[in-house]
Amino acid sequence: MKADINGNIEDIRAVWMEGKTVQMIEQRLLPHKLEIFTARTVDEVCYSIKDMVTRGAPAIGVTAAYGMALAVLTGEDIQDAAKRLKATRPTAYDLFHAVDLMLDKLTDGEEAVSAAEDYANLIVEKCRLIGEYGEPLIPDGGVVLTHCNAGALATVDHGTALAPMRAAHNKGKKIFVFADETRPRLQGAALTSWELVQEGIDHAIIADNAAGHYMLRKEIDLCITGADRITANGDFANKIGTYEKAVVAKENGIPFYVAAPVSTFDFSLASGMDIPIEERDQDEVRVVNGGLICHKDAKARNPAFDVTPARFVAGFITEIGVLKPDEIARLKQS
Amino acid sequence: MKADINGNIEDIRAVWMEGKTVQMIEQRLLPHKLEIFTARTVDEVCYSIKDMVTRGAPAIGVTAAYGMALAVLTGEDIQDAAKRLKATRPTAYDLFHAVDLMLDKLTDGEEAVSAAEDYANLIVEKCRLIGEYGEPLIPDGGVVLTHCNAGALATVDHGTALAPMRAAHNKGKKIFVFADETRPRLQGAALTSWELVQEGIDHAIIADNAAGHYMLRKEIDLCITGADRITANGDFANKIGTYEKAVVAKENGIPFYVAAPVSTFDFSLASGMDIPIEERDQDEVRVVNGGLICHKDAKARNPAFDVTPARFVAGFITEIGVLKPDEIARLKQS
Repeated sequence: MKADINGNIEDIRAVWMEGKTVQMIEQRLLPHKLEIFTARTVDEVCYSIKDMVTRGAPAIGVTAAYGMALAVLTGEDIQDAAKRLKATRPTAYDLFHAVDLMLDKLTDGEEAVSAAEDYANLIVEKCRLIGEYGEPLIPDGGVVLTHCNAGALATVDHGTALAPMRAAHNKGKKIFVFADETRPRLQGAALTSWELVQEGIDHAIIADNAAGHYMLRKEIDLCITGADRITANGDFANKIGTYEKAVVAKENGIPFYVAAPVSTFDFSLASGMDIPIEERDQDEVRVVNGGLICHKDAKARNPAFDVTPARFVAGFITEIGVLKPDEIARLKQS
Repeated sequence: MKADINGNIEDIRAVWMEGKTVQMIEQRLLPHKLEIFTARTVDEVCYSIKDMVTRGAPAIGVTAAYGMALAVLTGEDIQDAAKRLKATRPTAYDLFHAVDLMLDKLTDGEEAVSAAEDYANLIVEKCRLIGEYGEPLIPDGGVVLTHCNAGALATVDHGTALAPMRAAHNKGKKIFVFADETRPRLQGAALTSWELVQEGIDHAIIADNAAGHYMLRKEIDLCITGADRITANGDFANKIGTYEKAVVAKENGIPFYVAAPVSTFDFSLASGMDIPIEERDQDEVRVVNGGLICHKDAKARNPAFDVTPARFVAGFITEIGVLKPDEIARLKQS
């Protein structure tokens, strides 16, 4: 991804390994400051995932894979490291997939760092392909709605939902993006918009409430979001609010696409209602920019994800092509 | 409404007249501080409406009516005062209704202050009746979703959407309210929740994104919101985000009610698409609690209202009863 580092536009990734450290963009400081966070131990990697220094299902997976490599480099027990890494966040399937894959590779005697690098490069290549397959869905002059941040920051590079937009923009198409701000953590305003500014893609941030207004007025041509987990029947979990957008899109005849690598599919779960939904601290809702937004005695609820049933999905944009919900069963065999 | 004034629970209104001044709760300081704003001129009344010292369609109407009385008391030209008051906000119909009514009364020779007080008392009585008619819709143990603030603060007393909840609570029913925080201006978190805390009604603030999650899981029994303007066909304009909630409620078989006095109906407009939608400053989205939530170069769009088509409305809770969208034509004759 492009990033303005002290006035120089450089090409960087969201997370990478350097010697015996895992380096990552400190996403909690975006969009105001670009700083690099360094993890030197498995515990520091766990902290970086749990506390959302890095976030987004694929980036969490890669960070955890690097964490497993770090366990080897620092002489920690890899089974124990795997257990702690898997306990950091409950919803994203990539995390478990990446840690189990690394366990297999290490058990097979692969060199730890190159095994993790292979995994990272594979994720990046998948995202590039998601961009290629998704790009034709965006017409020249098209307006796209996205929710949360399924960009390069969330996926190491390119993004999932943002990859087709990057690809369309780089191909010279004139596009416009509505970026839902995505309360409570505001990843759309803070991260997606930050990425779009870096890339020079024309866009506007909107309150999550405003998406329906533009859909009803036919000012949005298509929606693309990421996914944290997709179940065997095509239901998917993604950032809270995704379900509302998908329902309103369908009501208005606007196609709703989900961009995600095949590793996001979890065929062990029959339906989205089986996905555990993380409820995060109520102060993520109650406090914004350090200030309380409500009476001190008021309580809040804070589910971090919701589930969208498959019937609202026009297609899944993956690294092997765009699949309709009734076509995903064939991924199981592949 | 109940309000904790320096530790004493008192019964106050959102706006009232005192001598040659209009007094109102300074809603921009809620939920942290309860202060009274004093307007001594028509210009100060205009400022209080435009800058949202007071807000909510019925409260705006009453404030403007008091503003017309103030014009008489301070010797201003009433036609000119009417023009300036009507120019403060474009969407709420009550504003135009109240100013025109006062113009008629003053032309007919009515005493200015008592004419304005009569109008205020009528609004309060209408809200009390909305509470009485709406209360049976809320089952004992029921969970209600509301959006924005259509409470006593917005309507001088009782509220429109909140009136049935107050009535149910006061009748001894155990109810629970989900209050959408209502970005960008957070009136749900700041005002609705503040009112519910004062009344002792059990509730939780949620990010606007979370309402669909609870609807899909059947954890919400009904929705009640206010309306800023209702057109002849039963479409209505209300705070941005209302449309999304109504669509998702219908998808889940949850009845969606609109609570508003009959004066909110504007039979001069055939459909909701004829209602002018105010677009407010983009910094209402970009800045929260004094801090920028996005990159300094990022732009935002900020429509303040949206339109919900009549087909999503289970009923209009008014001071003359609960009407289905296809029954409102008879209001035109009344």
